[in-house]
Amino acid sequence: MDIEFVTVGTELLLGFTHDTNAAVFARTLAPVGARVVRRATVADNPDSIRAAVGEALSRTGFAVVSGGLGPTTDDITRESVAEELGLELRVDQTVLSDIEARFARFRRGPMPESNRKQAQVPEGAEVLANAFGTAPGLWIATDRGTVVLLPGVPREFKALTEEHLVPRLAALADSETVMVSRTLRTTGVSESLLADNLGEHLLAINDVEVAFLPSLEGVDIRLTATGAHDFVARALDAAEMALRPILGHQLYGMNEDDLAALVLGELRARGARLAVAESCTGGLIAARLTEVPGSSDVFTGGVVTYANEAKIHRLGIDPDELARAGAVSDEVARAMVQGVVDRFDANAGIAVTGIAGPAGGSDEKPVGTVYLACTWDGTIESVKRHIPGTRHEVRRRTVQAALDLLRRML
Amino acid sequence: MDIEFVTVGTELLLGFTHDTNAAVFARTLAPVGARVVRRATVADNPDSIRAAVGEALSRTGFAVVSGGLGPTTDDITRESVAEELGLELRVDQTVLSDIEARFARFRRGPMPESNRKQAQVPEGAEVLANAFGTAPGLWIATDRGTVVLLPGVPREFKALTEEHLVPRLAALADSETVMVSRTLRTTGVSESLLADNLGEHLLAINDVEVAFLPSLEGVDIRLTATGAHDFVARALDAAEMALRPILGHQLYGMNEDDLAALVLGELRARGARLAVAESCTGGLIAARLTEVPGSSDVFTGGVVTYANEAKIHRLGIDPDELARAGAVSDEVARAMVQGVVDRFDANAGIAVTGIAGPAGGSDEKPVGTVYLACTWDGTIESVKRHIPGTRHEVRRRTVQAALDLLRRML
Repeated sequence: MDIEFVTVGTELLLGFTHDTNAAVFARTLAPVGARVVRRATVADNPDSIRAAVGEALSRTGFAVVSGGLGPTTDDITRESVAEELGLELRVDQTVLSDIEARFARFRRGPMPESNRKQAQVPEGAEVLANAFGTAPGLWIATDRGTVVLLPGVPREFKALTEEHLVPRLAALADSETVMVSRTLRTTGVSESLLADNLGEHLLAINDVEVAFLPSLEGVDIRLTATGAHDFVARALDAAEMALRPILGHQLYGMNEDDLAALVLGELRARGARLAVAESCTGGLIAARLTEVPGSSDVFTGGVVTYANEAKIHRLGIDPDELARAGAVSDEVARAMVQGVVDRFDANAGIAVTGIAGPAGGSDEKPVGTVYLACTWDGTIESVKRHIPGTRHEVRRRTVQAALDLLRRML
Repeated sequence: MDIEFVTVGTELLLGFTHDTNAAVFARTLAPVGARVVRRATVADNPDSIRAAVGEALSRTGFAVVSGGLGPTTDDITRESVAEELGLELRVDQTVLSDIEARFARFRRGPMPESNRKQAQVPEGAEVLANAFGTAPGLWIATDRGTVVLLPGVPREFKALTEEHLVPRLAALADSETVMVSRTLRTTGVSESLLADNLGEHLLAINDVEVAFLPSLEGVDIRLTATGAHDFVARALDAAEMALRPILGHQLYGMNEDDLAALVLGELRARGARLAVAESCTGGLIAARLTEVPGSSDVFTGGVVTYANEAKIHRLGIDPDELARAGAVSDEVARAMVQGVVDRFDANAGIAVTGIAGPAGGSDEKPVGTVYLACTWDGTIESVKRHIPGTRHEVRRRTVQAALDLLRRML
């Protein structure tokens, strides 16, 4: 079942607000076999809305439209779509009562006259009740196909999608055919190297679409299969089994797995206590770990030592060694991790020192030079990395590399 | 000058990734008089890409296409657009050398074979150099109009837009009519209270559109005016002058101003040294400060004390006081900030202790209870706040509230 998604809103075209509804819609409907094949975003303009809906109907016969159902004068989706479909708009008394009751319930006084137009319904359309706002959704089935209008407010959009669209589309769609995705999460390897490594193995994968999604956390490999439930499960299992051995330790998790949460889980299972010492990441590793709910039973704390004096006094780094090897060095990274576990009563630790840029680089140690050290149960491992990118990117990639070093030790 | 924007990417249609490029493009190009009138998102599919680009050319004669220029087999934008325009693709030796040099520079070994196709250029196209990645942009002028291909990686997309598209489109566009926005950034006040406070003053503002944009950092007030350069500047100045007195100290900056950078700038001007002690924000304040390039001349370091023992041993908190007042208390926040400036040789400090949730709340101190303390030049100020939201939201809002407390002291 192919659907086109149309978002209405001049604000979106101006780039000041982001459309999250289209993504919510696609993720919510994929499991019932409905697929968004194209998206368009148009201005609050009758001709643009009519054209976008008309084109969508001519291509797929199914258009879902988000936005422009509000009470103000620039909300014209309802009128424009009714005109395109040649349908009269009439005030629906049930909808009108609902809107009036809503104002009474929230003690916001009588309904403003401007909300009255939200009770207009094209002839023959079905009303999709909206518990979170004044604009109901509308399901309009015509000879040219189906048009569904949904409010643009994200919470209302999501609720209507889940409550009304999922069951209706599941009933309409060929429920035998579903599209399911599975993601293999890798880190520590570039997209192109990964593609090269997987090269011929990808060719042997049947019935599964493979997409590479690079981010600062690594490269996700998304496998997508379409077909009957059993077929899809078998195809994805086969693809995953084919790729796992080649990915080896580059594979750290599946789907929504977060590396910080995985590392904390591994440590928790061992009854470990973790502390971190950061220079160039400046608190990001600690922040990433503590973003995970319940991290406090594993994570005891950390130190951000930007100044050399802080490294000496807060982590016990030997000033002579600091002067000899330099703050950005393997020796200092190892001393930092030892210092922080000693001081925070921990038996697992992460330390990072490096040059995030844009300033501070040299020929010998250019921007992106990073030393990582991790410790677990008395053993220290360290590694030097060259990490590309801006200050922002170097820092985020370094966080991921440091967490990954500890993961591999565990 | 009207432009259509086409985003290529099956993963976007599936809803797993968000398209931020279209918004960046619109915001960046509006000031030079170029306007995005429509957006489309299509799959990594030759027919879909060709159709979207063809339709855009027929409507506006100018299509900007983002994404699908990578090295993997699902990256087919270059080929599809060349085919739609009837142009041959040829390997450009200069581009190829640049890509090879990039691999050599980052010591990632020889260029993988899969990157070779990124050096392909349609005949007659101009290459837009990309300093941040292997895929250059392409500017293709034909009889049917202009097609610009840009890489989908956000940083590369943004850099190419600013470096190449702004000057080229400024030269092409009607430079007499521009749309300019100016943003007043506030924090510490809710959107609805702000709207109430500004109420009648907004009515007195002419020729300027006002939008309220709430985020975890506060509420931005965006002023937008359209017209001739002089007219627009006068209208925005008048609107800003009318709002400033009402906003008072809630206004912390303009446009892209970052509160952390502003606070660091104020401290730098005073020759100050800053240290931070964090509990519930778990390193986020330090991370936010150190994200600012050059922060190392002001920021000396910080401590994340999640465990009570860490608060006692790393910050010198009195164990009796900790037991009496509790870890989340005004007394402990004040002792933390004093402890951290003493230990990090600083004269400015920020400390935070609170309950970010989802667990850990009580009737007396529910989730969102946060104590902030700041110090500057021997004076300590502290405040208790109730911060709404999820763990993620409480943490981010707390960072902003803590930075704002120090800003107001300075």
